[in-house]
Amino acid sequence: MTTLEDLVNPGILSLTPYEPGKPIDELAREQGFTPDQICKLASNENPLGPSPLALQALQEALPHIHLYPDGAGRLLREAIARHHDLSVENVVLGNGSNEIIEFLFHVFVLPRTHEAICSRHAFAVYRLMAQLFDARCRETPDPEFRHDLTAMRKSIGPNTRLIFLTSPNNPTGTRIPNRELEEFVRAAPAHAIVALDEAYIDFLDDPPPSVSWVREGKNVVLLRTFSKMQGLAGLRIGYALAPAPIASLLQRARQPFNTNSLAQAAAVAALKDHEHREKTRQIVRAGRIRLEESFARQGLAFVPSSANFVMVRVGDGDALFHSLLRHGWIIRPLRSYGLAEWVRISIGTPEQVTRFLEIFPTALRETAAAPDSTGR
Amino acid sequence: MTTLEDLVNPGILSLTPYEPGKPIDELAREQGFTPDQICKLASNENPLGPSPLALQALQEALPHIHLYPDGAGRLLREAIARHHDLSVENVVLGNGSNEIIEFLFHVFVLPRTHEAICSRHAFAVYRLMAQLFDARCRETPDPEFRHDLTAMRKSIGPNTRLIFLTSPNNPTGTRIPNRELEEFVRAAPAHAIVALDEAYIDFLDDPPPSVSWVREGKNVVLLRTFSKMQGLAGLRIGYALAPAPIASLLQRARQPFNTNSLAQAAAVAALKDHEHREKTRQIVRAGRIRLEESFARQGLAFVPSSANFVMVRVGDGDALFHSLLRHGWIIRPLRSYGLAEWVRISIGTPEQVTRFLEIFPTALRETAAAPDSTGR
Repeated sequence: MTTLEDLVNPGILSLTPYEPGKPIDELAREQGFTPDQICKLASNENPLGPSPLALQALQEALPHIHLYPDGAGRLLREAIARHHDLSVENVVLGNGSNEIIEFLFHVFVLPRTHEAICSRHAFAVYRLMAQLFDARCRETPDPEFRHDLTAMRKSIGPNTRLIFLTSPNNPTGTRIPNRELEEFVRAAPAHAIVALDEAYIDFLDDPPPSVSWVREGKNVVLLRTFSKMQGLAGLRIGYALAPAPIASLLQRARQPFNTNSLAQAAAVAALKDHEHREKTRQIVRAGRIRLEESFARQGLAFVPSSANFVMVRVGDGDALFHSLLRHGWIIRPLRSYGLAEWVRISIGTPEQVTRFLEIFPTALRETAAAPDSTGR
Repeated sequence: MTTLEDLVNPGILSLTPYEPGKPIDELAREQGFTPDQICKLASNENPLGPSPLALQALQEALPHIHLYPDGAGRLLREAIARHHDLSVENVVLGNGSNEIIEFLFHVFVLPRTHEAICSRHAFAVYRLMAQLFDARCRETPDPEFRHDLTAMRKSIGPNTRLIFLTSPNNPTGTRIPNRELEEFVRAAPAHAIVALDEAYIDFLDDPPPSVSWVREGKNVVLLRTFSKMQGLAGLRIGYALAPAPIASLLQRARQPFNTNSLAQAAAVAALKDHEHREKTRQIVRAGRIRLEESFARQGLAFVPSSANFVMVRVGDGDALFHSLLRHGWIIRPLRSYGLAEWVRISIGTPEQVTRFLEIFPTALRETAAAPDSTGR
């Protein structure tokens, strides 16, 4: 007799679903808080909230939400192209930049045939998509939580189609030096696409000239998002920048209406919001220094961050997570990344950072296991 | 030397991208209209606009769009479950119901191995997704534009995994009689999933008891959307209702944050908006009668519709489309469905229907070819 399991693709059965940051509503219900008593530093969101220009654009767009979005996302793609001095043919919109990762697999990876490569503690969604497409994802070691580009280059085989580089990387916060990155892209073989995930690039003081590699027609796809710097994570809008022939293939893999009309309108406006971007950069830079200095004073190992979060070793990440939950704070434990001793703290407003640094030592004492100070 | 084309999956290369209704902005730019001079009856949207309760909920949700959505969509799934007297485990959210179609392929269809079945002039996205996954989609003939369930049953083979039934069907407007539908679902083989697309079910006076088949644990997945009756097409939110074991598999195929937070909030509110639903039903029913009566008086063949649009034979659909564009009206030509003589008119407000019926004969005269009145 046929059972349901007999009918299911092997990739689906092997897949480990992604563990998202705990939603505020859920914690409120569980612990009897009101939502405004809860502070979430778990998903690397923008603590200043969304771009005010985006909110204004949303008000104008709301009366029209009964109409389908422009499936081609023409106005937003034009705005993005202008922003980067590229052509509209270089821009592909995604329902979050995560969806671009799925397009890459749809276009370049056949199940049980092709492979992807990523760094050991890189963003989890590459592996998730590889499982969904029943493809192998090779992981290369990351000494000191940094991409080892030499190891990555060596692991490229004839069936490698996608190489994910993540800079700055989530959840480690490390970046790839610009020069190494450029050498890697220039030396990449013709049969593989370098997918350079730049979700956190806006937090770098000296970003790499990656857009010029798109202009030069390298086999490169840049992944960008409006979820971090622009504060539009709830709307789900990201994009790829790629040479036109690659972008045109990625377009074929998307649903006719994959990005919603409010996201498109908000993103066009957010691109113009230099003030919101500058303010965000300042508070992230200041908050990062305060977190890192405080962890150093407490003798805790942390990874110097190039993004809007800091990864710190606390002994038992799950225990600290639960301890902070009871105080109304949501952070991200990293057991699902194989980093059970570590947690990731998103950088909040100056006031949130102050309050967090007050509660943190208390919560840490409440956890059973104390961190040791040896090695990684 | 490796070329880009050598790296691309065959499904992607063979794919014919979906042709969406022309956006209002685009026509305005092309023809020198202002957007409010244009009337779009092309995408079966709700002419009354979005549910007012949904708009109110959006105002409350806007300040929080810097936060990621609840990936599990708990509140909306609970509301949908209550609405249908099902459990939350029966509900899967999609970025539009189109995304549910993609989940079905991810879970049940292997490239070049499994097959889908759909009716000849069924909604285009089933074929599009089959191409994306490099799977065969068998089409069964549709005499008088109706699903031939006997032919569909006969075309089921050992590798058939998905059977798409669409009732009411887009773009034809025909429905499957409740009794035939029930017999088909009850007799379906264990190795195939019946995907019953009910995007337009809210326009039926006597909908089938399809939710009870989910309760009974049949191999059935119901596809529903907030884009039509609830007027939320721009937000991209749809759902599947399925027995829990199937729903749980579909959940594995989705991105961690596939539906946006504004869509979730608006949909929860729209479900409660009985008044908006009732008003919409009334104007759609009245407008449909007026369109059909007018087409009959003009001696034009049309397909009696069970949805919020009418398909009518005008001779040269593309010519009429272009002629109406010049007057500021967007309708849908159906050449991409192999129906070059036909167009699909969405039902507008009473005032829009009046104005449309005034301009329609003029636009029809302007087209070169007149329709003939013989057969199909």
